[in-house]
Amino acid sequence: MKRIDWSSLDAAARADCLARPGGGDQAEVEAAVRRVFEQVRADGDTALRALTRRFDGVEIADFAVTPEEFEAARAQLPAKLRVALAEARSRLVTWHRAGMAAEFEVDTAPGVRCGRLLRPIPRVGLYVPAGTAPLPSTALMLGVPAELAGCADVVLCTPPRADGTADPAVLVAAALCGITRVFKLGGAQAIAAMAFGTPTLPRCDKLFGPGNRYVTAAKQLAAMLAGGPAIDMPAGPSEVLVIADAGAPPAHVAADLLSQAEHGPDSQVILVTDSAALIDAVEAEVARQLAELPREAIAQRALEHARLMRVSDIGEAFAISNAYAPEHLILALRQPRTWLDRVASAGSVFLGDYAPESLGDYCSGTNHVLPTNGAARAWSGVSVASFQTSISVQEVSREGLAAIGPCAVEIARAEGLEAHAQAVLRRLEAQA
Amino acid sequence: MKRIDWSSLDAAARADCLARPGGGDQAEVEAAVRRVFEQVRADGDTALRALTRRFDGVEIADFAVTPEEFEAARAQLPAKLRVALAEARSRLVTWHRAGMAAEFEVDTAPGVRCGRLLRPIPRVGLYVPAGTAPLPSTALMLGVPAELAGCADVVLCTPPRADGTADPAVLVAAALCGITRVFKLGGAQAIAAMAFGTPTLPRCDKLFGPGNRYVTAAKQLAAMLAGGPAIDMPAGPSEVLVIADAGAPPAHVAADLLSQAEHGPDSQVILVTDSAALIDAVEAEVARQLAELPREAIAQRALEHARLMRVSDIGEAFAISNAYAPEHLILALRQPRTWLDRVASAGSVFLGDYAPESLGDYCSGTNHVLPTNGAARAWSGVSVASFQTSISVQEVSREGLAAIGPCAVEIARAEGLEAHAQAVLRRLEAQA
Ligand SMILES: [Zn+2]
Ligand SMILES: [Zn+2]
Repeated sequence: MKRIDWSSLDAAARADCLARPGGGDQAEVEAAVRRVFEQVRADGDTALRALTRRFDGVEIADFAVTPEEFEAARAQLPAKLRVALAEARSRLVTWHRAGMAAEFEVDTAPGVRCGRLLRPIPRVGLYVPAGTAPLPSTALMLGVPAELAGCADVVLCTPPRADGTADPAVLVAAALCGITRVFKLGGAQAIAAMAFGTPTLPRCDKLFGPGNRYVTAAKQLAAMLAGGPAIDMPAGPSEVLVIADAGAPPAHVAADLLSQAEHGPDSQVILVTDSAALIDAVEAEVARQLAELPREAIAQRALEHARLMRVSDIGEAFAISNAYAPEHLILALRQPRTWLDRVASAGSVFLGDYAPESLGDYCSGTNHVLPTNGAARAWSGVSVASFQTSISVQEVSREGLAAIGPCAVEIARAEGLEAHAQAVLRRLEAQA
Repeated sequence: MKRIDWSSLDAAARADCLARPGGGDQAEVEAAVRRVFEQVRADGDTALRALTRRFDGVEIADFAVTPEEFEAARAQLPAKLRVALAEARSRLVTWHRAGMAAEFEVDTAPGVRCGRLLRPIPRVGLYVPAGTAPLPSTALMLGVPAELAGCADVVLCTPPRADGTADPAVLVAAALCGITRVFKLGGAQAIAAMAFGTPTLPRCDKLFGPGNRYVTAAKQLAAMLAGGPAIDMPAGPSEVLVIADAGAPPAHVAADLLSQAEHGPDSQVILVTDSAALIDAVEAEVARQLAELPREAIAQRALEHARLMRVSDIGEAFAISNAYAPEHLILALRQPRTWLDRVASAGSVFLGDYAPESLGDYCSGTNHVLPTNGAARAWSGVSVASFQTSISVQEVSREGLAAIGPCAVEIARAEGLEAHAQAVLRRLEAQA
């Protein structure tokens, strides 16, 4: 972990300190993904079988998970985990439902009624990683808002295990959200399949979910296809920024930094505090707790580029956080709610000493699919709105047209669009 | 205009009939845009001056529009147009304000309060085309929601005219929305400037607005930059689909088709009706009205690929429309509101015989920046939400953590993330 005294840095060093790491050999990843896309586009299911053989080392005749496999997964899952998934889902439903947008109508002039309809996106594709560890929580995070939005066609892809089955916890989580179309397909080939459609999988209108560099590049490529699917958001390594004051318990702060670090070697871990004593104490705690972790090696690598930043006051910490726009922002402050107004850009905020980031990952009710890599300046976490479109509507009576038509004619002519003016004028004449 | 009997087509012919035209020499456009991006990234304002000289044929020392230029624009604009712009803006404010999302909080468990904050995107960049015709209406469509969202930094780029000034109507529209930072910059170089930032222009977090093929490709390229800006939506040629019954006035339907056709030679114009007589009458009306239009040649070219489709019943027309997902959908039906439930995917809907599409372009109150090219299946028109982010928040008490912590521990361990479990457990131990 790098210790940094913010006040000693010049502007360039400050920018450096908040910069995200570069992408590595992105060109190679992109080229590989392009090849996968070409194969899937050309050969459909046959290509999917060949790619699964190559990348997952398993022969799969039929990618679709059968009702029997769902049943087996349920039987196989420890009862405590099944209950925990159901419990997490029910809080997700509470929060996501409370945040759903409403349709509305308003008269913008007498006889001119304008409104907005909400519609589910017809076909959505969810990707749930299952590499070193399967992520049933991600199935819930995507499945719950898809269910609340009422999407007619929900497809979920998750990589097969070595024995050709899907992870049972992922299947149970999917089933809890009413998802029945699960396909044992991983990597860029899963994204390509949902983007193009094959005889087995439908072509999806929008793709969701996290993944490794290949999946991320594949989603980016899918989003660029003319007439291709939308995607939830651009993805990068996971991040936490903790703003802590002298009263924050060092053991809690250290535990939060470590839970971020264990996500992967490229995880971004930042502490900003006005207390030099806290930095010392957190550093000691991290060393102590790290030694006990099963994923010590991964966390260790993430911590190599972690930053412990000392600022002169907490206000400055918020300026830094807003410039960085972290995915997760923990406010380990004495009166955390009073500081909320200062948050301009972040994915999800955790208030106080009893709100570890792991609650947001699993079961507070908020969504864990969040913008990374500074995208929080312009993007938001996944919500029901991510699975809906809104359609504007205008209903205009004769009187309404008489009232606002001349305004349209004036501007249409200023823009040189006479047919636009005529579409109004011919109707007004017809009334006379 | 092609006349099509839907029932006589097989599945492949139907898909063909609803397909959008391909992009032309997209590779050449992309390559040109890449060169512009490299120049602007390397040389900033100097590159902008050189590119403006080359593409706009005008020498501009300072791109920023001065207060004196704003003043001159106001003085120069016909009073009727100034009033029309102000009137349009006020209806846009009414509709956009009525549709604004709200912050919320909900207890997902005792002691677990989860909510959502809304924040303006800090720096937004608006592009307002001014090629063959300047588009002051677009300045309103982007300026109003930016203003309502409360974006701190709003930058607007619009191409300079041959004399080096900006279009006065665009300046007046911008000023009506409180926008003071207008730059005389057009094309891909304007997008590059807002994406990278230069000593003169700030780097923007999100880019908005329509444009020609170069601007569109530039936005797409900007959206792919790692850590680069978000964009409002992918763009394609403008479109209308009219669903009409036998009672629809042919002169109105023809006027709507023509107002779409005059946008450009690549405009998409489709009529779907269950009445063969209406098709005959509309065709005759189009021929008659077309001859009177100043943009006859442009409309003529768009009409060459227009489609007049006969279906056996209106229900089928909605199935076609939903598959096509048009930018503009006009329901020239006798009881249009009763059909609204059938609309699954569209940008904006116009109900009845007195709602020409030109009202939506200018002054009904809805936004005219809408998804094209089938993007309406997954994207929505611009609204205040397009200029905001939503940030999730969780506040958890000791009791709250005791209530939901074990659930997080269970799932974290199933995912092999022990540090996540420990971040909960250490806090629970500390309580004991
Ligand atoms: Zn985490
Ligand atoms: Zn129009």
